[in-house]
Amino acid sequence: MRRLEGGKLVVATHNAGKLEEIRAMLAPHGIEVTSAGELGLDEPAETEDSFLGNALIKARAACAATGLPVLADDSGITVDGLSGAPGVYTADWAEAQGGRDFMQAMTRTWTELRAAGAAEPWTAQFRCTMVLMWPEGHHEVFEGVAPGHLVWPVRGTLGHGYDPMFVPEGHDATYAEMPAEEKNRISHRARAFALLEAAFA
Amino acid sequence: MRRLEGGKLVVATHNAGKLEEIRAMLAPHGIEVTSAGELGLDEPAETEDSFLGNALIKARAACAATGLPVLADDSGITVDGLSGAPGVYTADWAEAQGGRDFMQAMTRTWTELRAAGAAEPWTAQFRCTMVLMWPEGHHEVFEGVAPGHLVWPVRGTLGHGYDPMFVPEGHDATYAEMPAEEKNRISHRARAFALLEAAFA
Repeated sequence: MRRLEGGKLVVATHNAGKLEEIRAMLAPHGIEVTSAGELGLDEPAETEDSFLGNALIKARAACAATGLPVLADDSGITVDGLSGAPGVYTADWAEAQGGRDFMQAMTRTWTELRAAGAAEPWTAQFRCTMVLMWPEGHHEVFEGVAPGHLVWPVRGTLGHGYDPMFVPEGHDATYAEMPAEEKNRISHRARAFALLEAAFA
Repeated sequence: MRRLEGGKLVVATHNAGKLEEIRAMLAPHGIEVTSAGELGLDEPAETEDSFLGNALIKARAACAATGLPVLADDSGITVDGLSGAPGVYTADWAEAQGGRDFMQAMTRTWTELRAAGAAEPWTAQFRCTMVLMWPEGHHEVFEGVAPGHLVWPVRGTLGHGYDPMFVPEGHDATYAEMPAEEKNRISHRARAFALLEAAFA
């Protein structure tokens, strides 16, 4: 974390939970972390059709607004039997009156897999794309992928999003059946962050 | 150039001149450079509408085919009075029977600037986007921009492409009136490469 050592970093998120997770990961490196939300920046529209495209939108907006190095990410789940859906639309599939309902999104995923006649196991990947951007025209990208498969009915109550439907490769439990410490060792976000740390080791 | 030291790097180009330029830049770092052209790889279609998008296409194709780290780039000129054209289509504007004709492309640029009633100075930027990609899901991007303006009639006989029409900021001569050593100190490609070197210093 050489070029950031002792420096400031803006995390391009308005999600307090994600900010705390990243702040904890960066604390050992002596990096002072603030967020787009804490700075009162607007959230740009995520109009691209790839995780990388949307992470770049968030990074560029926060970089231009602050003149500081920025860490942005975008993540979601891609299902092979649905040609990669929901992908960047993972959160959109959960849109419901009054907030997000991932049980609705998982049910739609199961319904579409059955309608498509997709053969089991229903392979899928949780993906996290992190962008670390400096104002002067340099950025780095770290792509963490957790392969696995989907189960129905869903199992477990921990985590969030598609966690109860996703069994990571080499495991029997879903993400939602794993203690946070275990999921955080093997998750797509952990893999992206490990690449980030390795790049600065 | 830490993580490449003594290693192999594939330059995703079929242009022998560009390969030699990059080989010379990397020689002091002990990096063995080969190219997509020397390896007989196909040239992927550049279907994106941004320099970064096209550089990523080239990097991903060469990375998947070789399993080695890859350096890819895309470059061109953006003219403010033409809403950024020709941009990623810089080479396309020069397409002519029997090869490329940049006098044709520069004449079209001048004609369209006059038709648009663009006020002088005709500000423009030479841009170079370099992507350094590792197979395991990490890549870095370095964007070099050389601001300047366009002149008509064109001046100078050195260089290539739009060089005779482009006067870099802070200079009176066009790129095509400058000795290679001078242009190579201030060019968009030199700026991208300086960012790349700084990232590994």
